Amino acid sequence: MVERASRERRRGSTGERPQRDRSALAHPRNPYGGAKALSDDEVEHIHRTALAQLEQQGVKVLLQEARALFAGAGAQVDEDTFMVRIGADLAETLLSTIPSEFVLHARNPEHSLHIGGDSVVFFPVGGPPYASSRETGRHPGTLADYRDFTRLTQRSDVLHAVMPTVEAQDVPLNLRHLHTIHTALVDSDKPATLFARGHGPVAEQFELVRLGHGLTHEEFLARPHCWTNINTNSPRQLDIPMSMGIIDFARAGQMVIMTPFTLAGAMAPVTLAGALLLQHLEAVAALCLAQIVRPGAPVAYGAFTSNVEMRSGAPAFGTPESMRAAIASGQLARRIGVPLRSQASSTSPTADAQGAYETMTSLMGALLGGTHIVMHSAGWQEGGLTASFEKFVLDVEALEIVVEGLRPVLVDDAELALDALAEVAPGGHFFGTAHTMARFETAFHEPSLFTRQNIGQWTEEGSLDATARASRLHQRWLDEYVQPPMPADHRAALDDYLARRVAAGGSMPES
Amino acid sequence: MVERASRERRRGSTGERPQRDRSALAHPRNPYGGAKALSDDEVEHIHRTALAQLEQQGVKVLLQEARALFAGAGAQVDEDTFMVRIGADLAETLLSTIPSEFVLHARNPEHSLHIGGDSVVFFPVGGPPYASSRETGRHPGTLADYRDFTRLTQRSDVLHAVMPTVEAQDVPLNLRHLHTIHTALVDSDKPATLFARGHGPVAEQFELVRLGHGLTHEEFLARPHCWTNINTNSPRQLDIPMSMGIIDFARAGQMVIMTPFTLAGAMAPVTLAGALLLQHLEAVAALCLAQIVRPGAPVAYGAFTSNVEMRSGAPAFGTPESMRAAIASGQLARRIGVPLRSQASSTSPTADAQGAYETMTSLMGALLGGTHIVMHSAGWQEGGLTASFEKFVLDVEALEIVVEGLRPVLVDDAELALDALAEVAPGGHFFGTAHTMARFETAFHEPSLFTRQNIGQWTEEGSLDATARASRLHQRWLDEYVQPPMPADHRAALDDYLARRVAAGGSMPES
Repeated sequence: MVERASRERRRGSTGERPQRDRSALAHPRNPYGGAKALSDDEVEHIHRTALAQLEQQGVKVLLQEARALFAGAGAQVDEDTFMVRIGADLAETLLSTIPSEFVLHARNPEHSLHIGGDSVVFFPVGGPPYASSRETGRHPGTLADYRDFTRLTQRSDVLHAVMPTVEAQDVPLNLRHLHTIHTALVDSDKPATLFARGHGPVAEQFELVRLGHGLTHEEFLARPHCWTNINTNSPRQLDIPMSMGIIDFARAGQMVIMTPFTLAGAMAPVTLAGALLLQHLEAVAALCLAQIVRPGAPVAYGAFTSNVEMRSGAPAFGTPESMRAAIASGQLARRIGVPLRSQASSTSPTADAQGAYETMTSLMGALLGGTHIVMHSAGWQEGGLTASFEKFVLDVEALEIVVEGLRPVLVDDAELALDALAEVAPGGHFFGTAHTMARFETAFHEPSLFTRQNIGQWTEEGSLDATARASRLHQRWLDEYVQPPMPADHRAALDDYLARRVAAGGSMPES
Repeated sequence: MVERASRERRRGSTGERPQRDRSALAHPRNPYGGAKALSDDEVEHIHRTALAQLEQQGVKVLLQEARALFAGAGAQVDEDTFMVRIGADLAETLLSTIPSEFVLHARNPEHSLHIGGDSVVFFPVGGPPYASSRETGRHPGTLADYRDFTRLTQRSDVLHAVMPTVEAQDVPLNLRHLHTIHTALVDSDKPATLFARGHGPVAEQFELVRLGHGLTHEEFLARPHCWTNINTNSPRQLDIPMSMGIIDFARAGQMVIMTPFTLAGAMAPVTLAGALLLQHLEAVAALCLAQIVRPGAPVAYGAFTSNVEMRSGAPAFGTPESMRAAIASGQLARRIGVPLRSQASSTSPTADAQGAYETMTSLMGALLGGTHIVMHSAGWQEGGLTASFEKFVLDVEALEIVVEGLRPVLVDDAELALDALAEVAPGGHFFGTAHTMARFETAFHEPSLFTRQNIGQWTEEGSLDATARASRLHQRWLDEYVQPPMPADHRAALDDYLARRVAAGGSMPES
């Protein structure tokens, strides 16, 4: 219903024209995810070597609570060095409790997400300190920017969760998580992404999600309604807030993605195999902690391996190395039966052709790798320092096209068009056939931003390139935005909780 | 040698820095080409239905010489209606003589191309009447534009043949093929693409290729040194120059690609399955003609199926429909064991992000489909009406990245970096390890055009987007261009033949 309403809003509700079914965008499937950048033997070798490294060298865990959990499960813990060594058999046992598929529940059930299998979902940019648009320029992110990105996410059929698109730097740290997640819950009915920055802020965000979804405490804990991303401190270290995050989310049965920060040449070896080995080792350690806390906790394997620019040490995205790593990561995640997260990201400092090529290169790697959650796939610019409104709109348009392009070709008598083929003479055309007339309005995907004007029309309208048109379209999308309905009692409870926590000073994140 | 010289030219020959091996760009492999948009049963059904249509409805062949060849091979020919009906058994017999892999020979053996298997080659834009650059604007193509594109092609490791990048409209039609192919042979040592526009112009171009390569007549005919593309007049018609082209190229043992012009909604049914059925039927008919002329003639299956914009009837490229069609076409070509040609093309009227997304979308379809020859993959703009210098440079950069991204991940003890992993403490970094120091200069692909500058540096240098930088880079590449060597006697014979044919008035193309 929401989907249909959204379509009518865009097209006008008078029904003057048949509408193409856009449901494939809401629940995309990727049939092309089984690619192999490694032989099966090499996958096995990397997995075995990672387990051996975990057993012999181990990982450093800075949070005592986490070390105690590892020790309780049978890992070797050194309380002087903080090193945790996990036996290979123990690791395999813990990995075996990970669900290979599950549902991430949205407050609107139509927006609940199947994670795993041949499903693929797309989440927009997350994390940048800066926002950018042609109108405002590049500036420190604000709560208003976060709200606008949330609304654009809600409006875009091909985006499936609300991300921390940009840091709301105008809100103090102790209150930021409260205001952003309140906004995410009110302005969208898609699953929300939380930051895991300590027990206090996480507990407050969980309560917001529970109230916004109208759940009892038991209902909240029974299945995942929100999620977070955990980055390790590569190499081989789990810091305090991240360890807390794993514990908090696993304990509450909420989804947690373990993403080693393995940038080859900096925090990881300069060789891809070495970076992937480190990624796998760290991911397994973090996944084990979640399964110790709650066997069966919904988790995913994060593949972020890319490379740095060796002259500057700056991370680079959309590189050939990141594409190869994403494909290989798919094999490693499948080896242990865990859903895969990777990303479609770019290095370009502006919303130009370079950014488009880079995003598409990493998207190609993500899809070939069988990624289930493609993060950062709309609006990620400048290596993740900026969330760009123009790039957001450009990427949404591209994602819709690619998702449509993943659909199989339907073959039946009507689709084979035998009558039309018999009807049209050699050298003729199909414009007027009954077969065409019955289908032409809905046969093809129609772009929103990409132009098919001829050069004359395009020049007359000002020769605007796609980025300039995206700048206009993002404003129109915001103007057309409609807030999704929320029961009044849920909204009241949500607002009341926000007001009380703000009055109490919120919670400072761990550092 | 040429490859090494080319690298030294770009970097300076003082050898101050180790160079990354770029040989993967000259002979790329695609391990990801087996994707399926159709079930195996559906492939079989489309193939069988196409053969049944060829047997029952047939195709219209406008050239009497071609109809006679079909009749001689056992097809049913109606000389009143020009319809040729090919029995299914006859078609299968003729298809069985097609080589699934072969070599297209360049005058520089290092640039000879393996066609088929898991090889993939990239050819730039072909056919536009207009050229465009920021400096000159959009203008009717000239021989100077053609020469510049030829030089850029020669210079780009990831481009593998010289295409008719742009029509040299300043050269009269009767002489155009002579001047362009002379330029292609002198300014490049990669295989040349000829237009098949009648027996006369083709014979002259063959002679230019023979002389430029320094071959006897027997050597020329013994293996393919050049090639052409044949478009059918969809639906179900082969016109006179195209039929002549098939005969001329097959007779001379030169490569010919059969590309039905099946734009869904216009010259083909509005449904993809119908358009693919028509494409397959027409491709099979054209392939049969080539095999009648010369069993074993080197041919390829052209997959051009895309859709039109239904409001205007204009062709659209980089669409989801073209991506799906390319993947399905790969299955149909594999069904009959014929190398596949498709393309990476775009609709955008300018070298912007839209063009980049569209090119990458169709490139994704081409690679998933196991395309062996990716035509139009650099510089194709405005639905093929314009060859853009900026887009050419942008696309070359993107192709290099994607080709590098197709490489498997190497796994051995050195690549796994076990020593480095043991050496770096948890939370440390790999910048200074011996493992990194030994590799950092060549570990990663380095872009030529795409910037990894931080926002400060980039702003200081003028905030140039990738298209603006491409405009500068295309001039630098032309300035750095070095003509490949050609034996003096070959060059003299080539120049002499050109002069004589020009003096004699060349040959008018068939219309």
